[in-house]
Amino acid sequence: MTTVRIAIVGLGRLGRRHAANLQQTHGAQLVAACSPVAEERDWAATALPGITLYQDYDAVLQDSNVDAVFLVTPTSLHAEQIIAALKAGKHVFCEKPLALNVEDCLAVEEEAARHPQLKVMIGFVRRFDASYRDAADKLAAGSVGRPYLLRSQTCDRNDESGFFVRFSASSGGIFMDCSIHDIDLARWLLGNPQPKRVWATGTNALHPALAEHQDVDNGVAMCEFEGGQLACFYASRTQAHGHETLTEIFATEGRLTVGANPRANRVEISDAHGVRNECVQDFYQRFAEAFVTEAQVFVDTIRENRPSPVTLADAREATRIGLAITQAFRSGEAVSL
Amino acid sequence: MTTVRIAIVGLGRLGRRHAANLQQTHGAQLVAACSPVAEERDWAATALPGITLYQDYDAVLQDSNVDAVFLVTPTSLHAEQIIAALKAGKHVFCEKPLALNVEDCLAVEEEAARHPQLKVMIGFVRRFDASYRDAADKLAAGSVGRPYLLRSQTCDRNDESGFFVRFSASSGGIFMDCSIHDIDLARWLLGNPQPKRVWATGTNALHPALAEHQDVDNGVAMCEFEGGQLACFYASRTQAHGHETLTEIFATEGRLTVGANPRANRVEISDAHGVRNECVQDFYQRFAEAFVTEAQVFVDTIRENRPSPVTLADAREATRIGLAITQAFRSGEAVSL
Amino acid sequence: MTTVRIAIVGLGRLGRRHAANLQQTHGAQLVAACSPVAEERDWAATALPGITLYQDYDAVLQDSNVDAVFLVTPTSLHAEQIIAALKAGKHVFCEKPLALNVEDCLAVEEEAARHPQLKVMIGFVRRFDASYRDAADKLAAGSVGRPYLLRSQTCDRNDESGFFVRFSASSGGIFMDCSIHDIDLARWLLGNPQPKRVWATGTNALHPALAEHQDVDNGVAMCEFEGGQLACFYASRTQAHGHETLTEIFATEGRLTVGANPRANRVEISDAHGVRNECVQDFYQRFAEAFVTEAQVFVDTIRENRPSPVTLADAREATRIGLAITQAFRSGEAVSL
Amino acid sequence: MTTVRIAIVGLGRLGRRHAANLQQTHGAQLVAACSPVAEERDWAATALPGITLYQDYDAVLQDSNVDAVFLVTPTSLHAEQIIAALKAGKHVFCEKPLALNVEDCLAVEEEAARHPQLKVMIGFVRRFDASYRDAADKLAAGSVGRPYLLRSQTCDRNDESGFFVRFSASSGGIFMDCSIHDIDLARWLLGNPQPKRVWATGTNALHPALAEHQDVDNGVAMCEFEGGQLACFYASRTQAHGHETLTEIFATEGRLTVGANPRANRVEISDAHGVRNECVQDFYQRFAEAFVTEAQVFVDTIRENRPSPVTLADAREATRIGLAITQAFRSGEAVSL
Repeated sequence: MTTVRIAIVGLGRLGRRHAANLQQTHGAQLVAACSPVAEERDWAATALPGITLYQDYDAVLQDSNVDAVFLVTPTSLHAEQIIAALKAGKHVFCEKPLALNVEDCLAVEEEAARHPQLKVMIGFVRRFDASYRDAADKLAAGSVGRPYLLRSQTCDRNDESGFFVRFSASSGGIFMDCSIHDIDLARWLLGNPQPKRVWATGTNALHPALAEHQDVDNGVAMCEFEGGQLACFYASRTQAHGHETLTEIFATEGRLTVGANPRANRVEISDAHGVRNECVQDFYQRFAEAFVTEAQVFVDTIRENRPSPVTLADAREATRIGLAITQAFRSGEAVSL
Repeated sequence: MTTVRIAIVGLGRLGRRHAANLQQTHGAQLVAACSPVAEERDWAATALPGITLYQDYDAVLQDSNVDAVFLVTPTSLHAEQIIAALKAGKHVFCEKPLALNVEDCLAVEEEAARHPQLKVMIGFVRRFDASYRDAADKLAAGSVGRPYLLRSQTCDRNDESGFFVRFSASSGGIFMDCSIHDIDLARWLLGNPQPKRVWATGTNALHPALAEHQDVDNGVAMCEFEGGQLACFYASRTQAHGHETLTEIFATEGRLTVGANPRANRVEISDAHGVRNECVQDFYQRFAEAFVTEAQVFVDTIRENRPSPVTLADAREATRIGLAITQAFRSGEAVSL
Repeated sequence: MTTVRIAIVGLGRLGRRHAANLQQTHGAQLVAACSPVAEERDWAATALPGITLYQDYDAVLQDSNVDAVFLVTPTSLHAEQIIAALKAGKHVFCEKPLALNVEDCLAVEEEAARHPQLKVMIGFVRRFDASYRDAADKLAAGSVGRPYLLRSQTCDRNDESGFFVRFSASSGGIFMDCSIHDIDLARWLLGNPQPKRVWATGTNALHPALAEHQDVDNGVAMCEFEGGQLACFYASRTQAHGHETLTEIFATEGRLTVGANPRANRVEISDAHGVRNECVQDFYQRFAEAFVTEAQVFVDTIRENRPSPVTLADAREATRIGLAITQAFRSGEAVSL
Repeated sequence: MTTVRIAIVGLGRLGRRHAANLQQTHGAQLVAACSPVAEERDWAATALPGITLYQDYDAVLQDSNVDAVFLVTPTSLHAEQIIAALKAGKHVFCEKPLALNVEDCLAVEEEAARHPQLKVMIGFVRRFDASYRDAADKLAAGSVGRPYLLRSQTCDRNDESGFFVRFSASSGGIFMDCSIHDIDLARWLLGNPQPKRVWATGTNALHPALAEHQDVDNGVAMCEFEGGQLACFYASRTQAHGHETLTEIFATEGRLTVGANPRANRVEISDAHGVRNECVQDFYQRFAEAFVTEAQVFVDTIRENRPSPVTLADAREATRIGLAITQAFRSGEAVSL
C-alpha cells in the first residue's frame, strides 16, 4: 500500500479543482501537471508548487515517477490518451464521457483488457455523492420495492456568457454532455438493464445559436429497457434559480427523490418574497464533496487493488445510449438499440 | 339572474360529490337526479330529499323544471347525451374527457353552434384550483418570462382493488383517462399552442392485467408544439404515498411548480421515520375546493351569460392530443398531428 | 332540528366575514345584523339583503325571530352582551377573548349556569382548523406519545398603518389579543393542565408608540403547568413575510408541528431569489375554512343540543393565564397562578 | 508560516474526531496525544501512528516539539489546563464551555493577557458552520434589517443509555452543556449586546434521575439584552427524530432560519409514511464540516498571527449568561445580570 503518484492532465476550471482535491487525497501525491496552455502551466507553477510541469502529454507518460494520470481533457482526446497511458503502464482516471462514439469506447476496453493490473475509472461523479449512495443503498436493501421508472435531470443555471454555445461543436450536444450523467444513474440505480428504444426532442429557449450544431439548450428523452423499466431524461442550460440535478426513482413500494430543491445550505429566508432558500449555482457547488470522494476512491482502488467501481463497460453503455438519444433527437424518430 | 335548476346525471362516487356541491352552490338549485342504477337512486332518495329522481335520461330532458344537466356519466355516453341535452334546450356541464374520438367532439361542437344561447362546459377541474389559477395569473403577468417546457403528471395512489383495471376497457387507457388533465393544462398554461408531434411509452409495474386492453399502469409521453414549446406527461396508478398531481412550468426567467409534495394539511411529524407530512390520498381530496369552484363557475356562466371558461374546442384538442399519444404508445412510433 | 335564526352583532372587517359565512351555513339563517355605526349598517343593507338591521343591541334581543346572537364586538362589551343575550333566551357565539378580567368571565359562567338549555361558544377558531384537529386527533391516539412541551406563536405581518397601535388601549395588550389563541391551544392540546407559574418579556421592534399602553409589538412568555408540562408563547406584529401561526407539540415519541412555513397555496417559484413560496398574509387567509367550520359547529351544537365544544371555563382559563402573563411582562417577575 | 505542531489532550469520542481532523488540517501536524485512560492511549497507538503518547498533561507541556494544545477534556479542568499551557508557551484550543464559573474564566483571561503572542480559541463550533456564517454575513450586510429577537435550540436525540444522566453531575446542567452554544450564537448574531435579565424553567420528560443534580432533560429560557433585543433558548435531550440545532433570527425586514428540518442529506422518501426525509442523528453529523473548518481556522490564526475569532471574553460572557439562566431555573425567579 504505497503512495500513488499522480499527474493531472488538463488544467481548466474543473482540472484545477481536481488538482486541489488530489493534494488532499489520502495515499496520493500530486507529482506532475500537464497542459498545452501556457497560462494554465503558469497557474500550476504558483498554485501547485513542487510538482513537475509538462506541456506535452507524451512526456508525462515517460515520467517514471508517475503511477497514474488524471485526465480532465477534451472528450475528443479521451480514448487515445487512455490507450497511450495504459501502454505506458499508468493507471487512468478520465472525466466523462469516455468518448463520443462506441468504437473509441471499445478500443479503450480492448487495450484495458491487455493490462488487467491497471485501473481505469471514468468520472461519473454522482456515484460518489453521499445522497445518491444513500438512495442506491436503500434500493439495494429493497426499502422501496422494485424500481420501474427513473426520471433524472441535469439543469444548469443559464450562463449568459454562452460558454456552452461555443463548446457545443465538440461536446457532442446536450444529451452527451449533460444527460450522460443521468443515463449512467439510470443504469446504476435500475440494476444495469439493457436499453431497448429511445425517443428525444428539444427546444432552444434562450440560445438559438445552438441550432448551428444541431444542439438545443433544453432537451428531453425517454428510454425503454428490457424487462419494462423506463427512464426519462431532461437536460437544460437555462434555469434561473441555479443548478438542479434531480433524480426520482419510482418503485413498487415508494419513491426516492435525490436533489429536489437544490438548497445552497441550511439557511431559510422569510421576507417580502415569501419563504425561500438560495440554491447551489453550479454542478461543482452541488458535488464538491463527491469530487473529493471520487478522487479518494480512485486512489484506494489502486492501492488496494480493487475492481474499479465504474467500469469501461458502464462508460461505453452510457455513450451508446447517449448517442442513440442524440440520433433520436436529430431524426425525430424512435431509435432501437 | 334567476336560479339555475340543475339535474345531476350519474350518481357514482364523483357524481355524489358533485350533487353535494351543487346543493351548496350559490344561485343553483339541485332539482333532479338521474341514474339507471337502482342502488344509486335509493341513495339519492335519502341523501338528496325533495328532488325528482329519474331512471331514464330522456325523461330528465323532458322535465321543464330543469335548466341544466350535470353529466357524470361514462365517457362513451358524453357526446350523445350532450347533443340530446342541447336539442332539449338545456345547458350542459360534462365531466372530462369530452369523448374518446375526435368525430364525437366535432359533432358536439356542431350541435352547440346551433344553440349559442346554451352553455357547455367540460370539467377540467384543475382550471378552477386556486394554486393552478395563481400559476396561470403569474404566467399571464409575465413574472417568470416566457414558458418553454411544461411537465405535468397525474399519479394516483395504488388501488389494490384494481378498480381501474376493470375500468380500462372503457376508459380509453391511462393517457385518455389521466393525462387528459395534464394535456389540458399544457394547452392552457402554454397559451394554446398547436401540437405537432408526440411520443409515448409505458410499463406495467403492478397490474399486468392491463395489457389485455393495451393499457399500462405507468405511462410517459412527450409533445412538441408549433413554436418550439414542449410538454412531458406522466401518468401513474401505482404510487405508494398518495395522489400527486404535479405540474412544472419552465420559463425563461423562472419556474413555477404546482403540487410538489402533496401535503394533506399543515401538520408535520418528526419521529423515528424522520420529518414527514402525510399526503392527499386521491384526486378528490386534492381538488375538493376546485370542484366547488367549478360548479359555482358553471352556474355563474349561465346566470351572467358569460362565455364558458372551458370551451368545446379545448376539450376536442385535449382529446385529439390524448388520442395521438395513445396511438404513439401503442405503435412505439412518433405520431404527427 | 329546525333552522337557527341568527343575528350578527358587530360589522367590522371580521364581522362581515362571519356574516358571509353564516349565509352559507347549513341549518342557519342570518336574519338580523346590528351595529351602532351607520356606515356598517349601510354596508349590510346592500350586502345582506332581506335581513333586519338594528342600531341598538337591546332591540336585537327583543326580536323574537332571533334564536342566537353572534358577537363580533369589542372585548370590553362581551361579558355584558352575553349576559343580556342569555337573559333574553338567545344562544350566543362570541369572539375571543371572553373578557379582559376573570370577574367578567365568572359572571358570564354564572349566568350561563342559569340557562342550561342555551349554548354559549367562544370563538377559539383554531380548534376548528383541519390541521389543528388532525394534530389533536394524533395526540389523542397517542401516536407521538405523551406531550411535555408546547410552543406556539401568533405572528402577524407588519401593518404599517399601525391599526393595532390605536387598538392597543382596549385590546388588553399583545398577550391578551394574540397569545390568547396559543394559550387556548396549549390547554386543549396538553389535556387541560392547571397553570402554575408564568414569565414574560417583550420588545418594541417597530412600533415604539405601543409603550404608552405598556404594550409591545413582540412578546415572549413561558408557562409551567402542574404535572411538569411547559408552554412557550411568542406573539409578534412585525413579520415581513406574512402571518405565521405556528404550533409545535413535543412529545415523548415525536413532535407535531402545525403551520411551519405558512404557504399561501401549492405554488412554488424557482427564480433568481432561489426556491420560494408566497405566504398567507393575515389570520383570515390562514383560517378562512376554520371560520366556516366554526360557524357550522355552533349551529350544529344548537340544532343537535350538544355540549359546546369550547366552554366558558376554557375561555375563563385562557383569560386567567393571559392576564398572569401580562402581569409578568409588566412586572418583570414570575407570576404564580 | 511554519507548520503548527499540535498535541491533542483528551481522546474520548469527540477527541478522536478532532484528532482525525487535525491530521487533515493544512499547516498542522498532530505530534502528540495525551490521555490518563490506558484504553484511549491504546486506541491512539493504533489510530495515530508516529505520534508521541502521554499519560500526563504536564509532560505534554514540557515537550518542546509541541506548539499548541487542543483540549478536549472535562470542563472542570479547562481553566487550569489553559493557564498551565500558556505558562508553558503553548497556543491553546479548548472545547466549550470555558468554565463553569466566571472566576475561572477571568483567571484564564488574566493569564492570557500576559502572553499576547499566544492564541487561545474556544470551540464554539457553530461559528464555523457554513450556514451560520451565511446567516451572519446576511445580517452584517443588513439584508433582513435590524435583528430584535433570536430563538435558538439545541435538541438532541434521546439517548436511551442515559449517558448524559451520568454526566449531569459535572456538566453544569443542560443550560451550561447545551444552551451555551445558543447563548454564544445570540451574542454573535445580535452584535454582542449586554445581557440584562434572564428567566428559565424546565421539565423531565423521560429522565427523572436528572432531578438528583437539579438538572432536566428539557429546559427553556428567555434573556433580555440592553437595547431591547431578546433571546429565547430551548435545550432538549429527548427528541425522537434526531439532532436539531435550530436558530431563528427575527429582524425588521425578514427572518433568517438556520437548521429547520435537520435533513440527513438530499434524499426524500415518498411511501406509506408520507413524504419524508431522514435526519442527522447527532451534533457531530450536523457539524462535521464545521469541526474541520474550526481546526483549520485555529491553525491559520496561529500561522498568520491573526486575532482569535472567538475570544476569551466571548467565552466568559457565555458562561456568565449560562450560569444566570441556571440560577433562574433553580430559583424560579428572574435573575438580573
